[in-house]
Amino acid sequence: MESNKLLLNCDMGESFGLWTMGQDAQVMPYIDLTNIACGFHASDPQVMVSTIQLALQYEVKIGAHPSYPDLQGFGRRSIPMSVDEIINLTIYQIGALQALAQSQGTKIHYVKPHGALYNDMMCDMSIFEGLCEAVSQFHVPLMVLAVPDRDRLLDIADEYDVPLLFEAFIDRSYLANGSLAARSVKGAVLDRCEDVVNQAKQIIHYQKVTTLDGETLPIEADTLCIHGDNPIAVEIAQQIHSLLAK
Amino acid sequence: MESNKLLLNCDMGESFGLWTMGQDAQVMPYIDLTNIACGFHASDPQVMVSTIQLALQYEVKIGAHPSYPDLQGFGRRSIPMSVDEIINLTIYQIGALQALAQSQGTKIHYVKPHGALYNDMMCDMSIFEGLCEAVSQFHVPLMVLAVPDRDRLLDIADEYDVPLLFEAFIDRSYLANGSLAARSVKGAVLDRCEDVVNQAKQIIHYQKVTTLDGETLPIEADTLCIHGDNPIAVEIAQQIHSLLAK
Amino acid sequence: MESNKLLLNCDMGESFGLWTMGQDAQVMPYIDLTNIACGFHASDPQVMVSTIQLALQYEVKIGAHPSYPDLQGFGRRSIPMSVDEIINLTIYQIGALQALAQSQGTKIHYVKPHGALYNDMMCDMSIFEGLCEAVSQFHVPLMVLAVPDRDRLLDIADEYDVPLLFEAFIDRSYLANGSLAARSVKGAVLDRCEDVVNQAKQIIHYQKVTTLDGETLPIEADTLCIHGDNPIAVEIAQQIHSLLAK
Amino acid sequence: MESNKLLLNCDMGESFGLWTMGQDAQVMPYIDLTNIACGFHASDPQVMVSTIQLALQYEVKIGAHPSYPDLQGFGRRSIPMSVDEIINLTIYQIGALQALAQSQGTKIHYVKPHGALYNDMMCDMSIFEGLCEAVSQFHVPLMVLAVPDRDRLLDIADEYDVPLLFEAFIDRSYLANGSLAARSVKGAVLDRCEDVVNQAKQIIHYQKVTTLDGETLPIEADTLCIHGDNPIAVEIAQQIHSLLAK
Repeated sequence: MESNKLLLNCDMGESFGLWTMGQDAQVMPYIDLTNIACGFHASDPQVMVSTIQLALQYEVKIGAHPSYPDLQGFGRRSIPMSVDEIINLTIYQIGALQALAQSQGTKIHYVKPHGALYNDMMCDMSIFEGLCEAVSQFHVPLMVLAVPDRDRLLDIADEYDVPLLFEAFIDRSYLANGSLAARSVKGAVLDRCEDVVNQAKQIIHYQKVTTLDGETLPIEADTLCIHGDNPIAVEIAQQIHSLLAK
Repeated sequence: MESNKLLLNCDMGESFGLWTMGQDAQVMPYIDLTNIACGFHASDPQVMVSTIQLALQYEVKIGAHPSYPDLQGFGRRSIPMSVDEIINLTIYQIGALQALAQSQGTKIHYVKPHGALYNDMMCDMSIFEGLCEAVSQFHVPLMVLAVPDRDRLLDIADEYDVPLLFEAFIDRSYLANGSLAARSVKGAVLDRCEDVVNQAKQIIHYQKVTTLDGETLPIEADTLCIHGDNPIAVEIAQQIHSLLAK
Repeated sequence: MESNKLLLNCDMGESFGLWTMGQDAQVMPYIDLTNIACGFHASDPQVMVSTIQLALQYEVKIGAHPSYPDLQGFGRRSIPMSVDEIINLTIYQIGALQALAQSQGTKIHYVKPHGALYNDMMCDMSIFEGLCEAVSQFHVPLMVLAVPDRDRLLDIADEYDVPLLFEAFIDRSYLANGSLAARSVKGAVLDRCEDVVNQAKQIIHYQKVTTLDGETLPIEADTLCIHGDNPIAVEIAQQIHSLLAK
Repeated sequence: MESNKLLLNCDMGESFGLWTMGQDAQVMPYIDLTNIACGFHASDPQVMVSTIQLALQYEVKIGAHPSYPDLQGFGRRSIPMSVDEIINLTIYQIGALQALAQSQGTKIHYVKPHGALYNDMMCDMSIFEGLCEAVSQFHVPLMVLAVPDRDRLLDIADEYDVPLLFEAFIDRSYLANGSLAARSVKGAVLDRCEDVVNQAKQIIHYQKVTTLDGETLPIEADTLCIHGDNPIAVEIAQQIHSLLAK
């Protein structure tokens, strides 16, 4: 993780049983980090292993992508839980993926919470602290949103000796306060490859993005996230891969 | 596990959400090994952690108790799966419990498959071999039924460097072929403490049991299993504990 | 339902697979209405049928007790869902219970939402309206909390031709605003039979309760609820049954 | 159902949460009967309602497609259950779909068991009888495989006053004994549209099929099944629709 260049990450392993999601095989060649679902919002042990194998084939680093328990809602619904419950279900999921990674001769390199758990972590510092505690046991970094006021996150994470990986989104629009525009807002999801590449360039070259309302927001990121369920995910992955390789 | 004396094991952590099962707190003081459910037939991350904490309190060694995925059927239904699927779901569950054990400052000491998976392992050597492969990654023993023809199990387990722990049942009747009488058979479950203690004494002192049809069956065991959902489980645990302590 | 006397209702059928909950067989003889779980927070088709059969034995009227989909959380966690989703999952559950009731020669007489769905219905009129729409299809009443401002509920329910059954709680403390004190508040759950009977008498004879902070709250109820998981549920059921029979 | 012409049926509503399966919108215009999943192997209340609405749009008749409870295995794994359990879970699922159909102003017209439950029904007459009992409550026909020895099915179904709809498969190869070749057998799935149309023509015009081993098998069918997850499902549906319209 000690790289100067921005890394490209993508959520993967989100199929379940006979249902498939994403274009993992097509996108994997172009990314650096793959966030693998752990069975609570998507995935099952078979899907986890085949995604780990795909990652190994392209030398992509594996991250655990734990979630609230909610297959039907795909982990996008915030389930009211105590911090203690969140800690334990996160450890459960990371441990499960870690063991499967070891069975394939590899290991996890970081943790990125999924969906509603990710959002809740960014809004509720007691949840963020719980996740730091859970992740600390695995001696890997925690991936979080690259927000302007990163110091309050770093201060907490430091107490648990958990490094943070800050990520920026290149296919989602930002608001002036540094958060992502909700999916329901018009323009929240960038669906033209050109716009995505432009936002990526802004972040890579100038450490900033233009928000939905035209403001300029400083963004200091370690990694860029692309969404695998975006219909143009493969094209985006290829172009950003080239951009970062320069 | 390098003990000459027989160890007492019991399935625990089989509550789920608001539903409770077993008398874990009452039985834990009298046993040596606790087989903790891993969320597939029973348990959830909260139950797993509180069971680990209870085991730590009484210095009871923790084992993983993985199962087919079947909450409604409590893991007692054989789900048709490939060996590959069984390997991966077993690793998933053991890894999850291992991580939660580490979060509480301890670790797992062995693995005992649950219910239908346990039965299938004893009948189908390809499943037994798959479980050996899964368990080998964790460098702990696999617990199996103490059968007369133990060599065919030992030969396979040796290939995976997996030690075996042979267990005998003291509250269940045996058939002449060394298997347990099905629960539906009259007399299959010993429900008088006296009978359980007698069967335990036979196994401890003479390495044999009298089968349901009056035969004498040789049994060489490392550990004795009691069932926590037996109404007289606490009484049995106390008495066998005393017996073994002599 | 056209009775002048107050009816006693109780949540039942909340076992799941091998896990049991409540004392259905002991409490059923003393109640008038049984709210049967429909498989989303508890119960399964077997439990539903045996609960229906138990109700038939004691001529207790059956109500559907639908919930958010959340076995682990027992339906006590509010899952963010659209009203449309709530309507459809409620119809699904009522329809399933209705069909099982018919298979046993009976039918459902009312619907009472469970747990977090019940609370959300009382706080969010769009959810209440959605539930009225769902229930209207079955031509039975909807059971709701007996609140002081019942007219705003009646106005909405009337639009859907759904009669309301107002229920009061006799083993839970009230706040001055007419809502129940949260379970986490000291004194929220009445655990002495004497106190429960006194609150019941207040409601039956004087149509009021004394709130946790000493206020007098008018309560006009059609039915009284007792909780089957209360350790003294059987004793309460017997006493209130006698009280109502007078 | 009183038609002389063969009807085209297809499994639908097999998406779940965010996962999609099948090409329901593309295939629906060409079929007569849609077998809608009921939430146990696939589907959820939202998917069920949108599939019902799609069926209404094209005046396609709705059938319930109940299954063993097994989302991960998509209902293709035989779960050991008592006949009593099968009856109750089938009634549960049909009741749920029936209620959702009524909420959309329509109703179910038949029942077709799914996957492993369908196979078990054809092999185990006690399960077939259980399904007849379950379906009898809804006064609709039960769809079964068009086998040579149909009389033993008709005799049982008659006892429950359940009409049978016999279906033939046009995209699957048959064995000489009248059963379908297992998917794992080479040639079991017909993946060329031409072959599917030829098999359909044989059944429609000559009431027979040529089996995988070259025998001629008489087939008397009421309906033809196409699989929506076949990549050429839309093309097949169009062609068979034309064929049947002549």
